[in-house]
Amino acid sequence: MDVNTERSVFYISDGTAITAEVLGHAVMSQFPVATHGVTLPFVETVQRAQAVKAQINALYQQSGLRPLVFISIVTPVIRDIILQSDGFCQDIVQSLVGPLQQELGLLPAPVANRTHGLTAGNLSKYDARIAAIDYTLAHDDGISLRGLEDAQVILLGVSRCGKTPTSLYLAMQFGIRAANYPFIADDMDNLKLPAALKPFQHKLFGLTIEPERLAAIRQERAENTRYASLRQCRLEVGEVEALFRTQQIRYLNSTNYSVEEIATKILDIMSLTRRMY
Amino acid sequence: MDVNTERSVFYISDGTAITAEVLGHAVMSQFPVATHGVTLPFVETVQRAQAVKAQINALYQQSGLRPLVFISIVTPVIRDIILQSDGFCQDIVQSLVGPLQQELGLLPAPVANRTHGLTAGNLSKYDARIAAIDYTLAHDDGISLRGLEDAQVILLGVSRCGKTPTSLYLAMQFGIRAANYPFIADDMDNLKLPAALKPFQHKLFGLTIEPERLAAIRQERAENTRYASLRQCRLEVGEVEALFRTQQIRYLNSTNYSVEEIATKILDIMSLTRRMY
Repeated sequence: MDVNTERSVFYISDGTAITAEVLGHAVMSQFPVATHGVTLPFVETVQRAQAVKAQINALYQQSGLRPLVFISIVTPVIRDIILQSDGFCQDIVQSLVGPLQQELGLLPAPVANRTHGLTAGNLSKYDARIAAIDYTLAHDDGISLRGLEDAQVILLGVSRCGKTPTSLYLAMQFGIRAANYPFIADDMDNLKLPAALKPFQHKLFGLTIEPERLAAIRQERAENTRYASLRQCRLEVGEVEALFRTQQIRYLNSTNYSVEEIATKILDIMSLTRRMY
Repeated sequence: MDVNTERSVFYISDGTAITAEVLGHAVMSQFPVATHGVTLPFVETVQRAQAVKAQINALYQQSGLRPLVFISIVTPVIRDIILQSDGFCQDIVQSLVGPLQQELGLLPAPVANRTHGLTAGNLSKYDARIAAIDYTLAHDDGISLRGLEDAQVILLGVSRCGKTPTSLYLAMQFGIRAANYPFIADDMDNLKLPAALKPFQHKLFGLTIEPERLAAIRQERAENTRYASLRQCRLEVGEVEALFRTQQIRYLNSTNYSVEEIATKILDIMSLTRRMY
């Protein structure tokens, strides 16, 4: 890090700092400045907060540039210590609470809410999330075709098109029980929808991918094999897309999308309810 | 939904809407009002934006209560349509960009940045994330003790203490290659650190859990078994905690923490770098 040209950006929270970090990055990406990021989660004590304040102030002294500080801190006494630092501080939650206060004609009644926390109130919802992860792992990659009646979505596609990460993200982020089933090279001569999947037509969702990207991904795993050849990738993708169309299975091309985007699009298209954790 | 007493809250984005939803919930939790949430991701076209605007306005007409609207929309023309609705709109990114503009003495140069998007610039980082998920799945639950030199952290603990969800979250959210290894009932007579793990002492991290909570979790899976009995849970937790102490393995009690909190604490304690996706 070069303290004289890069702007220091702090993401500080008395929780995980995940939201401060994600939102702070989105904000900073709007400005053409080189930055050096420091994420400080679990700043929960006065002592720790004072050490962080000293760290911010020292950086300012050293560089002559005010550090930029994004905070998400629930406890007022901790928040105030950071706000008294020499950094340019913005509270990502409070900056939205203020205007709402007027609109609602209500004073905020802050509870020590941990955005990504576990409380008596959300424990059963949390258990459902863990159960969704268990379900998804047990139904990854066609391991088990039993219990598919409990799936909320069944992803289909060729090997390495993104089924597993998408299934896990759906379970982890949204508590969705997501099974997935792969079509492999041996299926291609006479590609059909497996009989075990037919009763669940309404839950099926296809993933496809550009053959060039697929070949590149497969090369990483198994260089110079038929499996990773562009020819084979083209064949598999062509056959599987044809199956999606003849069976009227909704599908999505994953090539240019992140796991977050694929998962969110699937929920949207299939009208599945997003749970929040 | 009762339109006359519940306040409608919209979370709208031209991306996944994940950040708008998480932050909006945190803001709303500060106020003692009953709400009904509607999340609308991928509002990317003028047509869709106008339909959303009409939906907001109709709800206002119907209920007499202004809907509250949290938006995270990159494209100005789309954003402006929503801002012209009758809702009480707050842009979660722009509300922080404005003040920063002054501090930096710079105009924002918004690129169509997708917070959870895939671009040419982050593709190799994204591939590393998928590789971390692959690694973590291949090293879940002690499946493989080969290649542990590539792990960044190896979680240890009894069955159902949270190792698998935590490992997957570390991989998914932060791109960390996380292996995990379970101690089972048969190990308890003479609990030792497996020889295969000894070379990686510095990567080991223990998870523990209150026996009562562990028994409740195990009962869900295997009611009225020795495995799920409080007596067995107490025995296993006691033995494993003793091992952590004698082997000087850092550990954490997962009972009252979410996956996000456990994962973030592990990164913090082990000084592992958080990657952003």
